[in-house]
Amino acid sequence: MVAELKLDRCSINTATLGHRSPISTVIDMVARAGFGAISPWRRDMVGCDLKAVSRQIKHAGLGVSGYCRSTYFPAVSREEFARNVEDNRRALDDAAQLGAPCFVLVVGSLAGDNKSLGHARHQVEDGIGQLLEHARKVNVSLSIEPLHPMTAADRSCVTSLREALDLCELIDPENVGGVGVAIDVYHVWWDYAVKEQIARAGKNKRIDAFHVCDWLSPTRDLVLDRGMMGDGVVEIRQLRHLVEEAGYTGYVETEIFSNLWWSRPEEEILTVCAQRLLTEC
Amino acid sequence: MVAELKLDRCSINTATLGHRSPISTVIDMVARAGFGAISPWRRDMVGCDLKAVSRQIKHAGLGVSGYCRSTYFPAVSREEFARNVEDNRRALDDAAQLGAPCFVLVVGSLAGDNKSLGHARHQVEDGIGQLLEHARKVNVSLSIEPLHPMTAADRSCVTSLREALDLCELIDPENVGGVGVAIDVYHVWWDYAVKEQIARAGKNKRIDAFHVCDWLSPTRDLVLDRGMMGDGVVEIRQLRHLVEEAGYTGYVETEIFSNLWWSRPEEEILTVCAQRLLTEC
Repeated sequence: MVAELKLDRCSINTATLGHRSPISTVIDMVARAGFGAISPWRRDMVGCDLKAVSRQIKHAGLGVSGYCRSTYFPAVSREEFARNVEDNRRALDDAAQLGAPCFVLVVGSLAGDNKSLGHARHQVEDGIGQLLEHARKVNVSLSIEPLHPMTAADRSCVTSLREALDLCELIDPENVGGVGVAIDVYHVWWDYAVKEQIARAGKNKRIDAFHVCDWLSPTRDLVLDRGMMGDGVVEIRQLRHLVEEAGYTGYVETEIFSNLWWSRPEEEILTVCAQRLLTEC
Repeated sequence: MVAELKLDRCSINTATLGHRSPISTVIDMVARAGFGAISPWRRDMVGCDLKAVSRQIKHAGLGVSGYCRSTYFPAVSREEFARNVEDNRRALDDAAQLGAPCFVLVVGSLAGDNKSLGHARHQVEDGIGQLLEHARKVNVSLSIEPLHPMTAADRSCVTSLREALDLCELIDPENVGGVGVAIDVYHVWWDYAVKEQIARAGKNKRIDAFHVCDWLSPTRDLVLDRGMMGDGVVEIRQLRHLVEEAGYTGYVETEIFSNLWWSRPEEEILTVCAQRLLTEC
């Protein structure tokens, strides 16, 4: 019982456009292209009046699917760790101001010369735990995004959906809410446990966001070589069906980091995204 | 109760030297450098008399830690699949001839235009299952090597130790043997379940091989940018301790695919490997 995707259920993550035009321009472009929502980054907000941005998004008829993204938690000192946590606390306020249902956590990993993923994971758990009460208060979910294991050293010590969900349970054992997961097909498609873990996430109401793009084969860069939906090998539609069968009713958000696409005009990227969301997702 | 590593417990995988000199030269270099064993590739054997190679290895005082590696199982047709299986059956005979305790399986993944990892996994299970009886007969273990998820599209649909061990249990439910795992720190270090899965592998006597190198941060190529032990972020010694606590008594094998190292003289590579095995592993 999974419906065909419609564009008003789709969101554009602003990173997809390469953070070139100011957010006010991007909002208008995204709305004009027919999308239902936008997912802005903190870097888009530098020098902006958040109230005005929020108002413009509403007036453009757009929803907000999420707010990107956290400062990494792991740190080499207590002071740095505390600063990272406070930085994320302020970002939660901004997410609330923008009307975002979730704040996407790319959690970070090895800090300084430390080689212990266990230590990084402990700091991540600690940091998210410290934010939980505030997240609940401002009604913005802390969405842990497991990242592909190829970024385990520098970007995310949380490398699978299973691990992200285990972390949710450690932080929120009573399943009260305020912490969940952002599922990006790019990061989880390879995992043979992905089906079972999506079902688990749904049962516990943990799916805050669903991101799409594609895995190119071969992939030439560990960060900036994501593919447009349909240009790679991921069974995107099957994954969308799984999250929706698991109860997810939110937006399907396109997030593509790609030197190739960032060399193209923003309007062209939006046009191709719109086509591919309908034919490939 | 984990002992300091000694060089006679260490093996050199011939890929580490870039497959430049003929195997007869490589055998002598590895022995002269003080290593206890070698792990040759099928490509090293092209045009060679396997009996003579085997004799030379023995006379050089070297053990054989494994034989690399399988033809990918997944195929676009039944005929191709059958050829892949038969190719691997012949390689098992060669492994036996060389005195290798295991034949390393890099299992392959998506074949042709197929996007189904599930289909690839089914073919892999089928193919290994077809080889099991022969592997037992020639006394060479089929060693499934889970590969890093960044190679899930093109090289290995088996992306974690958990998955490899699940596969062993599907193929050999009574745990008779003949199928196990090759654990390479490069492929498993990121996995938060690695400790528990190494213990599980040990309990079931499934650890056939233990490979070392290092994960460089940043990594610039998905295949050919492995690091020398100590140059990256992997807690190699901790992982060695885990496999040995789990009962593994075999060689510690260095396997480094690296355009950087392959540009250096083979003797230099061996010297640095020997140093780093003792100080970093």
